[in-house]
Amino acid sequence: MTDRILLAHGNGGKETQEILNRLIFSKLPDYLKKTKSGVGIDYPDDGAVLSDVKGKIVVATDSHTVNPYFFPGGSIGTLAATGTINDIVMMGAEPIAMLDSIVVSEGFPLDDLDKILTDMINILKENNIPLVGGDFKVMPRDSMPGIVINTVGIGITENPILDRVQENDVIIVTGPIGVHGALIASLQYGIEASLKSDVNQLTKLLKLFHEFPTDIHGARDPTRGGIAATLNEWAQLSDKMIIIEEKKIPIPEEVKSVTQITGLDPLVLANEGVAVLSVANKASKEIVRELENLGFEPKTIGKVVEPIDPKNKRLVIVRTEVGGAKILEMPTGDIVPRIC
Amino acid sequence: MTDRILLAHGNGGKETQEILNRLIFSKLPDYLKKTKSGVGIDYPDDGAVLSDVKGKIVVATDSHTVNPYFFPGGSIGTLAATGTINDIVMMGAEPIAMLDSIVVSEGFPLDDLDKILTDMINILKENNIPLVGGDFKVMPRDSMPGIVINTVGIGITENPILDRVQENDVIIVTGPIGVHGALIASLQYGIEASLKSDVNQLTKLLKLFHEFPTDIHGARDPTRGGIAATLNEWAQLSDKMIIIEEKKIPIPEEVKSVTQITGLDPLVLANEGVAVLSVANKASKEIVRELENLGFEPKTIGKVVEPIDPKNKRLVIVRTEVGGAKILEMPTGDIVPRIC
Repeated sequence: MTDRILLAHGNGGKETQEILNRLIFSKLPDYLKKTKSGVGIDYPDDGAVLSDVKGKIVVATDSHTVNPYFFPGGSIGTLAATGTINDIVMMGAEPIAMLDSIVVSEGFPLDDLDKILTDMINILKENNIPLVGGDFKVMPRDSMPGIVINTVGIGITENPILDRVQENDVIIVTGPIGVHGALIASLQYGIEASLKSDVNQLTKLLKLFHEFPTDIHGARDPTRGGIAATLNEWAQLSDKMIIIEEKKIPIPEEVKSVTQITGLDPLVLANEGVAVLSVANKASKEIVRELENLGFEPKTIGKVVEPIDPKNKRLVIVRTEVGGAKILEMPTGDIVPRIC
Repeated sequence: MTDRILLAHGNGGKETQEILNRLIFSKLPDYLKKTKSGVGIDYPDDGAVLSDVKGKIVVATDSHTVNPYFFPGGSIGTLAATGTINDIVMMGAEPIAMLDSIVVSEGFPLDDLDKILTDMINILKENNIPLVGGDFKVMPRDSMPGIVINTVGIGITENPILDRVQENDVIIVTGPIGVHGALIASLQYGIEASLKSDVNQLTKLLKLFHEFPTDIHGARDPTRGGIAATLNEWAQLSDKMIIIEEKKIPIPEEVKSVTQITGLDPLVLANEGVAVLSVANKASKEIVRELENLGFEPKTIGKVVEPIDPKNKRLVIVRTEVGGAKILEMPTGDIVPRIC
């Protein structure tokens, strides 16, 4: 038995059947191979069938690549499942199925792939989400050393959260900011740090979304580009200004040490288990309380305003601790760390 | 303006917005940016919303990589859109939306990416399928030279084709076999050939599926692994034997010349615009006639039988032109050509 991935594992024939059985299908109980009354990886075909679907369908896709692919707190497998679950949840939808598409290079260590896929499948098991279909390809060694995992999530909701933030909304983050990005930066730069990834599924938020069906105007999972990207996108889409208070942003000391050494801005660093919410002012205290009950560490960090000068529309402003103000730009330039 | 992809294009910020606008969003009319009454790339969020969906949902995903990424008849962009449309159609479903996830290496020529995405979008336009969401990542040059395009298709049907082939079924192919695979092999081996890819959407088959709702027991798009993989999978899943007649398989002369030089078997070569159908004997002549009316070149190549000796279940047998018989194995070993 080889201990590395061979080109033959991607032939769409015997070896592909064997490796998928060994690394994926055998790890899943039958009820997680399809949706109820649907058809999934229990019966291979061109696609999966989701039956008895009622409500609005939400679909999200994400291609995951990360270097290194194992890190304190998880792996690219944990990230791939979690990232897509969170994308579905942040639309206000309950995840009902996932598909995965794995592209791996010839020579990739089989044990590593086994661990990565076990991590992915464990997240699906914990969240009771069936894996209904997928793809598996092997690329020649000279064309791609490494692994790309694409995941597709399907969710159902009666009431999607469409991120239309409104004047006087309060901006809430559900936990510490910048942890995953700072961890990967520390690993890529060889900086000693005691960080562990915040990678975590945000499914508990569905209870909150259900309890406050009209008060949550924006919900986003600020991964690549961090909260800087999320807030700028919201300001652009809504034609409003967003003002945040630097001193209220919960940035852990370990993140600060990494960003001080590297010069990175914690607000552009990826988070993998934190949500940013834009909620109606009148309900914000109750929402914070419910978030605490659900086990989050919510902080109110700012608000949405209609600027007096229309030139300031679509801007995100950070009020600094010393009393000044600066523009928080949409992230630009190279991605550092390389979390693509 | 740079003429190559930069890491910054994948930052999830300003440069990503700019390149997606330039290469994708600006090429799509508004009505192809979302489903009717849904939310798609017209309003960026964590996921897309498909509203007013009635029927059974079909989902398929496929990661496309091919070397070279331009070839006579199309590009990886043509393949990515076509492959996923065909996967949905072969489930008996009408494609209603697509998502794309592009992973490209730093330094990739921008003009090439532009052409590839124009090819992909043209297929969506021709078939009136909205692109509702996606992802775009750039990998450092040292970790992946090249491009991987993952596509996700969503379809709707009342009557999915679940590929349960039955005794006495007739096996039909809708066109010449082995063309795409032979073309890519000729390019990779530097063999002179006048082949053009058969890449083509099979959406016209939906009319046939609608007209024969109970007579079509299997429908598959034999890409990677060719018709050898499809027929073996059917034999395994149904516990039947499949017998095909070598002389009835439509293999073009140009494909034969490539396979004679390379030693490849045309039956394991990928097809990108051909379907294999398993249909009830009583309806097979009518189905062939309707396929001809739809512009296909159908050939009846074999049948599904219950073998006298149960040991022969799950086998695919080829009756050769000289009167012998051989087992057609599930493809095994390295993928040649490297169509992953």
